[in-house]
Amino acid sequence: MSRKVLFVILYVQSPGTTLGKSSETIKVIKSGAKPRRFSIRDIEGVIISTKVHVSYDALMLLSEYSIPVIYQKGHKILSYSVPYANHGFVLTRREQMNAYNDSRGGHIAQRIVMGAIDNKIRLLKYTAKNRRSYKPQEAKYLVKVAGILEKKYKEAEQIQIPRKSTFTKPSIPKPVEKIRNKLMGIEGSAAREYFHAFRTLFPKKFNFVGRNRRPPKDPINSLLSFGYTLLQGPVLSGIAICGLEPYAGFLHSDRSGKPSLILDLIEEFRQPVIDRVILRLIGSGEIKNTDFRKEGAFIKLSDIARYKYINAIFKELETKVQKIDGKKLVLQQIIVHQARKFVRYLQGRESEYTTYCFNW
Amino acid sequence: MSRKVLFVILYVQSPGTTLGKSSETIKVIKSGAKPRRFSIRDIEGVIISTKVHVSYDALMLLSEYSIPVIYQKGHKILSYSVPYANHGFVLTRREQMNAYNDSRGGHIAQRIVMGAIDNKIRLLKYTAKNRRSYKPQEAKYLVKVAGILEKKYKEAEQIQIPRKSTFTKPSIPKPVEKIRNKLMGIEGSAAREYFHAFRTLFPKKFNFVGRNRRPPKDPINSLLSFGYTLLQGPVLSGIAICGLEPYAGFLHSDRSGKPSLILDLIEEFRQPVIDRVILRLIGSGEIKNTDFRKEGAFIKLSDIARYKYINAIFKELETKVQKIDGKKLVLQQIIVHQARKFVRYLQGRESEYTTYCFNW
Repeated sequence: MSRKVLFVILYVQSPGTTLGKSSETIKVIKSGAKPRRFSIRDIEGVIISTKVHVSYDALMLLSEYSIPVIYQKGHKILSYSVPYANHGFVLTRREQMNAYNDSRGGHIAQRIVMGAIDNKIRLLKYTAKNRRSYKPQEAKYLVKVAGILEKKYKEAEQIQIPRKSTFTKPSIPKPVEKIRNKLMGIEGSAAREYFHAFRTLFPKKFNFVGRNRRPPKDPINSLLSFGYTLLQGPVLSGIAICGLEPYAGFLHSDRSGKPSLILDLIEEFRQPVIDRVILRLIGSGEIKNTDFRKEGAFIKLSDIARYKYINAIFKELETKVQKIDGKKLVLQQIIVHQARKFVRYLQGRESEYTTYCFNW
Repeated sequence: MSRKVLFVILYVQSPGTTLGKSSETIKVIKSGAKPRRFSIRDIEGVIISTKVHVSYDALMLLSEYSIPVIYQKGHKILSYSVPYANHGFVLTRREQMNAYNDSRGGHIAQRIVMGAIDNKIRLLKYTAKNRRSYKPQEAKYLVKVAGILEKKYKEAEQIQIPRKSTFTKPSIPKPVEKIRNKLMGIEGSAAREYFHAFRTLFPKKFNFVGRNRRPPKDPINSLLSFGYTLLQGPVLSGIAICGLEPYAGFLHSDRSGKPSLILDLIEEFRQPVIDRVILRLIGSGEIKNTDFRKEGAFIKLSDIARYKYINAIFKELETKVQKIDGKKLVLQQIIVHQARKFVRYLQGRESEYTTYCFNW
């Protein structure tokens, strides 16, 4: 694997690190370590999640090359920089905004839901295959749920998206809103079925009875919620690189403070990245039931386990290679690749949007 | 004047300055000077134009309070940070995008042109009044040109903007585009007339024969171009504070790399800030003909004169008080105030957009 493949997005997670500029490279200086240099041409985004000093010169170099810098407080995104000079993204954003209420918004929402269900089916079938010999009953159950999800997939697929031309008629009041609600309903019921099966993949002592949030009530839900939040940084990075507006989604609708397009794009990466890593870490015993403790309404993960979890996710993003359109890409590049597909579809350069499906 | 009025936008122009966080304040540390603290509640924007270290903590505090940070290389904007948490601006930006092709876009474009012409008329009449006693011929000429501009103003005012409802009919192909071109034509011819008169206000040795650009051919044009560019920082700041998209304008149309909304909003501040400061600095002899030298195709301003010019502009923005809607505001607050008016008009909370007119 070439170095270029590895360093598309620079995660800077060690406190006290300095990002400096040295001619056309970004120099990463950690105390006690040899400085590392990355050619500005190899970087697609920078994610800062702790006390890191980005020098003025480094920031200017990144800006000149239109590379977004995302600032997080821990794993909560707080702001991101928008490169300004030679900024040619306004037309993309206009199309994004306009598409929300025409057939393109409906098409993307439909594909996102289909992709989300497809990845759930793939995870269930893959785990069933593994369990066939030593847990045949469980495997049978997983395959059964996969079958239910296949029906939901078809249901989503069969929703008719009106042609774009019909949207210029004021007599048709926002047909996409209706479609969006229908799709959200299908997605919600598919997710319920999926988590019902997913919970059987964990030892009983984890008390995982189904998906819950705000706050998550058990260790697995806590890992799921934390993991999906962690994905927001790389996904925002992909969206920002392509000049899309992170707040204007297609499946997820507008609401103050909701990064809807990020939530849309995350859908296709939940199972392939987060759910998969959780299964592996719990299955191998790398993260144990005893790594969690209850603090009031919250489930707290021990520092060591959290470190293991974050590392596993980012290692997955940085090194997991898949062949996409004939090219070998790591997961974090695939995120950018999917954001670029949004743009091409919105601009009419591609006739459909296809989601990412993991080869299990 | 309260401190709050003064420190709406924090300009950080001294190399080596550090912006740190100290509880709920931003601490400005300059070597050899006592640190200064600004309550986070008093800051509306931060503009960094030189090697300044903004600590991670300071940046996080600014992000939490939705305060944009604008990074410039000298006076060229290179990037700006978008606060992410609790970001409720997507609806504003949707309205901004939609308005481009409906009557609202036409209305704003019309008002911007009217405001730009009005400020030119005011500057000419004001200078004519001053010259009436000692340069009566010149004063008469200025008043004559002001009269021509008044006709242009009426011409812009009389353009009929179709009602919003007509825009849902696909049979009317983008009537606003036509209006925009017409307005641009009026604005262009008004500007030519204005600069024809404006040039008579400078000694002949400055060789100022009319407006030219890319690159400016004489000292006054060089000051004008530089000044209008300088205004981009505070104007972007005002736009970013209100959550508007800087690239999507109304009078200025979309083009890759063109910050159209910034160019739109700058129109109302050109004469009141830049043209006025130039007149004063040249008139008082603070900037002299000998401060300029030709270098190839470019006019270079001496370091001392450039420093005087930048300082005069920012002093004007920070201290020039005007009464707006019954409140005393300094110019940089008025810029934010105008951006907020865009938002209120776009959201339908105000029935018209009115530009800023300087009381000469």
